[in-house]
Amino acid sequence: MIDYKLLEALATVLEHGGFDRAGDALGISQSAISQRLRTLEIRLGQPVLVRSPELKATPVGQRLLNHFQQVRLLERDLTSTLPSLTEPSARLRIALNADSLATWWADAIADFCQEESLLLDLVIEDQDVGLRRMREGDVAACLCSSPQPVAGARCLPLGAMIYRPLATPDYVARYFPEGLTETALRHAPAIVFGPNDQLQHRFLAQCGFRNAFPHHLCPSSEGFVKMALAGLGYGMIPEIQARAELDAGTLVSIAPDQYLEVPLYWHFWRYGGGTMERMTRALQHTHRRQS
Amino acid sequence: MIDYKLLEALATVLEHGGFDRAGDALGISQSAISQRLRTLEIRLGQPVLVRSPELKATPVGQRLLNHFQQVRLLERDLTSTLPSLTEPSARLRIALNADSLATWWADAIADFCQEESLLLDLVIEDQDVGLRRMREGDVAACLCSSPQPVAGARCLPLGAMIYRPLATPDYVARYFPEGLTETALRHAPAIVFGPNDQLQHRFLAQCGFRNAFPHHLCPSSEGFVKMALAGLGYGMIPEIQARAELDAGTLVSIAPDQYLEVPLYWHFWRYGGGTMERMTRALQHTHRRQS
Repeated sequence: MIDYKLLEALATVLEHGGFDRAGDALGISQSAISQRLRTLEIRLGQPVLVRSPELKATPVGQRLLNHFQQVRLLERDLTSTLPSLTEPSARLRIALNADSLATWWADAIADFCQEESLLLDLVIEDQDVGLRRMREGDVAACLCSSPQPVAGARCLPLGAMIYRPLATPDYVARYFPEGLTETALRHAPAIVFGPNDQLQHRFLAQCGFRNAFPHHLCPSSEGFVKMALAGLGYGMIPEIQARAELDAGTLVSIAPDQYLEVPLYWHFWRYGGGTMERMTRALQHTHRRQS
Repeated sequence: MIDYKLLEALATVLEHGGFDRAGDALGISQSAISQRLRTLEIRLGQPVLVRSPELKATPVGQRLLNHFQQVRLLERDLTSTLPSLTEPSARLRIALNADSLATWWADAIADFCQEESLLLDLVIEDQDVGLRRMREGDVAACLCSSPQPVAGARCLPLGAMIYRPLATPDYVARYFPEGLTETALRHAPAIVFGPNDQLQHRFLAQCGFRNAFPHHLCPSSEGFVKMALAGLGYGMIPEIQARAELDAGTLVSIAPDQYLEVPLYWHFWRYGGGTMERMTRALQHTHRRQS
């Protein structure tokens, strides 16, 4: 049988970002933490952590974490039927897209997390990295726009987000006085989330425009809206994120007939136990209520 | 003299996240891009890019980018006095903290960016990584809470952000019916931005509490506020970000006498030229207006 104290030390060091803090969290000394990790590495004959440039698990460390998190989830099911075994709150690490986290996510899972005393470790990743972290066992679930299932995981559709190309009325008057002409699109600065964000390119392709365009890069959902509101550019913004600004007229669509629908899929470990099943039901419930 | 077409190909591949898109941006074929990078690597006798797990510059590639971006900035000064040399908009890569980007940043630099047709590549990094990217020449400036200057760069104070421990009134009634007792703090779930976020620990230390506490991790400024509003936890939120919620009473401070002040410093290349100087003046102006 695996010595779970060793795996717990590894998981805690990574969750808390350091040996001191992991020791505090487990109520043992920093040197006891180091000793447990050393024991683990000696047994495996290889390192489980790299210390620099940042603290992270090696591939074998990731596999251990994966296993440990699955065991913790399964233990939760057991302790819910055997209350005498009760333990402190469980943690669940989930990768998701920035725009879901900035908009509907918290409301969708709030009741569920409170009822189950569940703590979330959220990480923002685009779909390729999110699904890779899921394959590596670093996250227990991933919310993204790819329907491609991961081996050992299930994948359920969770509706879609609607994106519209928004800017201030002043911006529209300045850069698009004659509408979305080729010349205007070639000069009007856009706002793009990051180098892998294809929404802007897809929108422009829908408009029949395939040339290069000037753009800011802004990898923050809220910063993105703030930049649009400050008149720095136009950008593809989730409708639900800009409802107040659209109602107030501080943001308008530069092409009212055009929008993009980005589907969302919920990927989760098939054997994640009851907690994961109940969380999935909470997400499906929100999705049905919205649609 | 360096062949700047080669450096431009490198910078464009990294800015656009791929060879195809870089080709589109420069109006040349993907194979012409590859050829330029190959030429560069042959001259240097070493690679300038790594392709996996993600596209990024090698250390020597970073040094070339640093140099290229400085040359681009200096060129801008020249073309502003020699309009016949005019070129398309310049880009400036800047690292900053997530909370500034989610709150005051866009308003502070909007006029400046419009007047100068300047495009921004923003990256969110905490201070250690942001300053390291500055030392490596990957970013031209860094906004963070460290006053420690980087060699070759200047560092100016830009005021501070005030953080308060906020939660919903329901949350306070549920978890802190008798105030911030030791027992309550040991059980009330907090929200923490990420493993390196020390604000929560500093706040608790100010309250005389030094034990472990349950917490969610949520690396998104807007998601953080949404999680607090959904009643999932209390967290250290910038006062300027929660003004509407504080006025409406949907968020309240769990300890009205307590707050944390996080100073902000603007680090920028000493020889960044006039553009960088003018941008710095725009930021100082906003800071003076606010204080």
